[in-house]
Amino acid sequence: MKSLFLLVLGNTEVSLIPGISVAGATPELTKYTPPADAEYLFYDKPKIIDAIPVTPEGHPTPAIITKAARELANFPILVVRGGTYLAPKVPHVHISSIVGRDFRREPALPEAGEIIERAKLLGQELERSGIEELVIGESTPGGTTTAQAILWALGYEGKTSSASPNNPQELKRRVIEEGFRRAGIEFGGLKGNSLEALRQFGDPMMATVVGLSLGFKGDVVLAGGTQMLAVAAILKGLGEDLSRFMIATTRWVVEDKSATFIKTAREIGIISYAADLDFSKSEFKGLRDYEKGYVKEGVGAGGATWLAVKAGFSPEDVVRKVEELYRKLIS
Amino acid sequence: MKSLFLLVLGNTEVSLIPGISVAGATPELTKYTPPADAEYLFYDKPKIIDAIPVTPEGHPTPAIITKAARELANFPILVVRGGTYLAPKVPHVHISSIVGRDFRREPALPEAGEIIERAKLLGQELERSGIEELVIGESTPGGTTTAQAILWALGYEGKTSSASPNNPQELKRRVIEEGFRRAGIEFGGLKGNSLEALRQFGDPMMATVVGLSLGFKGDVVLAGGTQMLAVAAILKGLGEDLSRFMIATTRWVVEDKSATFIKTAREIGIISYAADLDFSKSEFKGLRDYEKGYVKEGVGAGGATWLAVKAGFSPEDVVRKVEELYRKLIS
Repeated sequence: MKSLFLLVLGNTEVSLIPGISVAGATPELTKYTPPADAEYLFYDKPKIIDAIPVTPEGHPTPAIITKAARELANFPILVVRGGTYLAPKVPHVHISSIVGRDFRREPALPEAGEIIERAKLLGQELERSGIEELVIGESTPGGTTTAQAILWALGYEGKTSSASPNNPQELKRRVIEEGFRRAGIEFGGLKGNSLEALRQFGDPMMATVVGLSLGFKGDVVLAGGTQMLAVAAILKGLGEDLSRFMIATTRWVVEDKSATFIKTAREIGIISYAADLDFSKSEFKGLRDYEKGYVKEGVGAGGATWLAVKAGFSPEDVVRKVEELYRKLIS
Repeated sequence: MKSLFLLVLGNTEVSLIPGISVAGATPELTKYTPPADAEYLFYDKPKIIDAIPVTPEGHPTPAIITKAARELANFPILVVRGGTYLAPKVPHVHISSIVGRDFRREPALPEAGEIIERAKLLGQELERSGIEELVIGESTPGGTTTAQAILWALGYEGKTSSASPNNPQELKRRVIEEGFRRAGIEFGGLKGNSLEALRQFGDPMMATVVGLSLGFKGDVVLAGGTQMLAVAAILKGLGEDLSRFMIATTRWVVEDKSATFIKTAREIGIISYAADLDFSKSEFKGLRDYEKGYVKEGVGAGGATWLAVKAGFSPEDVVRKVEELYRKLIS
């Protein structure tokens, strides 16, 4: 089966709220995370900034897993700029440069319809190109908060995960409730109106993945954790049959007790795969800490591992390659 | 064979020199031609401007041929922004927003190396995606002048064609000679140094097509007229074996007595295909005038026809579909 890995980049102002996102060393640096993740897949280092994205405590971006899986399985990658502050300095499909707004103050993405339409065109062309399976990863700092807002607006009681072992659920709840007040809705208030939920609380990554999924009619692997639950919920709300969709994520997301991945996936009705990656034996603290709940997923790490496994490699092979890449990075 | 049609967009300041280009109703409007051509392939009308590109006398863009061929054969299209003033309002791969400079005053494209490198990455990913043949068209107002400058700098005595029946060869010659004086070279002065020729006199479309061709190792159809001769000459100069390349163009280019398509193609050593399109029976003057030497080629019209023919349609089918599209446009 001919598979294509898409990396969809998105930003939302929500990542600038202190304490919401650790997908960058500081809130301001989360603006660089999506393009830097994309660039690192193609080069030894990002181009837009001199180092790979890290958490405030220095844990490396999950792009290192995606890069490792790709170096093993050699699958094709197409970067898609759904909507970011900065363009990556690698070839990428431009969908928009629209960043999701802080939904506490205003609708997050009034342009959702236009972004979906454009991404749908791209999905159609990929379908015509003979691609049979899209594996769609993402890099979207702050994206678990927009995802949880979407789930709640659509009436799912799910909790999204976090790149931090201390999932800021209390802060997320307050931010979302403030957004709901601004929009004048309550929990479940946009059930049956997915598109409006996306406009009010979404981010450009979600709109892009929705559009791609509508345009492309083959198999779609949503490669991400709880953020992809929100995408799946929107697709279901739009009347898509989810039987051609799967979420591929990592064990770390599935095992996250502060989130409800399996329960919510079941509620939505989408099957999932969890890459059995284990960093506990790593010689590097930055990687060993994944086992303590740092980072967990992103940049389609689980989906990339899925592609490597389909190509005959084991999760252990991926882990070994990650180790090798990390050694190279810090030497 | 799985083919992908790429439309590479480029601009050069050379198109603003009065009298050089009729790929737009006015020199200033040539800035809109590449994005408008791209948009018209996907929609009933361009989005960035309200009408399709036309010559000053109202002859329609050859994008109408490409669109007709695609509507018949349903081949996939990927738009690539090699370097233009304006981004098209359809999904497109962003390579650069660098426009070629007026080579009479300064080097045209000091960034050629960087553009090639980026386009090469894209070519590699397309190769990994299982695509077997790239058909690469272009929309680059002023591009036959940059092409002729390249050919002369590399020592080919060729004359490029023109979208006008009155090929402004005298003006082109003066412009090129002024460029050669500025750069301190003579005819053939950059033989053996293709990359420097591209930097001094090229345009971003050429650099992008060169990069794509270096990254993608399968069959490449250079879908254009005499502009693609310049690309082929550069590739040959870079040591590429041209046996996997072909130029696909139209009968109108091959029959153009003011240019030297066949002779120069033979000199470079690249085979060619000429789409046998005939608009003499059209009910529209704008199309009948193609037979008088207007427009001739562009937007990969010949290559798109090649794809339609490979899919079992005849050039007459394409002509009928063009007629239908044009009727719709002006009604």
